[in-house]
Amino acid sequence: MPKFQRHVFVCINERPADHPKGCCKARGGVEVRDALKAELTKRGLSKQIRANNAGCLDQCEHGVTVVVYPEQVWYGAVTVDDVNEIVEKHLVGGEPVERLLIKDNK
Amino acid sequence: MPKFQRHVFVCINERPADHPKGCCKARGGVEVRDALKAELTKRGLSKQIRANNAGCLDQCEHGVTVVVYPEQVWYGAVTVDDVNEIVEKHLVGGEPVERLLIKDNK
Repeated sequence: MPKFQRHVFVCINERPADHPKGCCKARGGVEVRDALKAELTKRGLSKQIRANNAGCLDQCEHGVTVVVYPEQVWYGAVTVDDVNEIVEKHLVGGEPVERLLIKDNK
Repeated sequence: MPKFQRHVFVCINERPADHPKGCCKARGGVEVRDALKAELTKRGLSKQIRANNAGCLDQCEHGVTVVVYPEQVWYGAVTVDDVNEIVEKHLVGGEPVERLLIKDNK
């Protein structure tokens, strides 16, 4: 069975422009995913830590949503500028980035 | 932080029809995802156990690929006919469906 050390899912769900919930794609989900993949590749980590697209993760009100497994840590309102910190501190260092956590237990 | 008891990702990646790797979408990934979502909803489990689209999970040679977190159990060549067994035995019962496991440690 293939194993990743960590597996990161970035919501890139797209909704019509006038949808009241908005969507992670419009908020920059694709750019976050691309930056994450690029950073993991740059560090030679893409075989151990995989970044993937995901459909709607049902946290639309929190902005671009990212979930990290196996620990199921949820990040909200993630931007491209947050990617290096997530990689360095959490995906490599094992310590979640506190300031980006989705805190409510929906 | 929101928590799912289990989070299931189904690859629905799409490649051009002549791509040598093929893709999970052409092999029925969307139908598997739909069946999984429908079965979870029917059982009233969709709040605790979430099924999501995923991009390429890098297991293309194994047919439609499904990964279940937090335990990171990988299934290959999944069809709509396998969905009830995955839900009943694994997602509810906690025991992976042995015959569908991807066995090689890529």
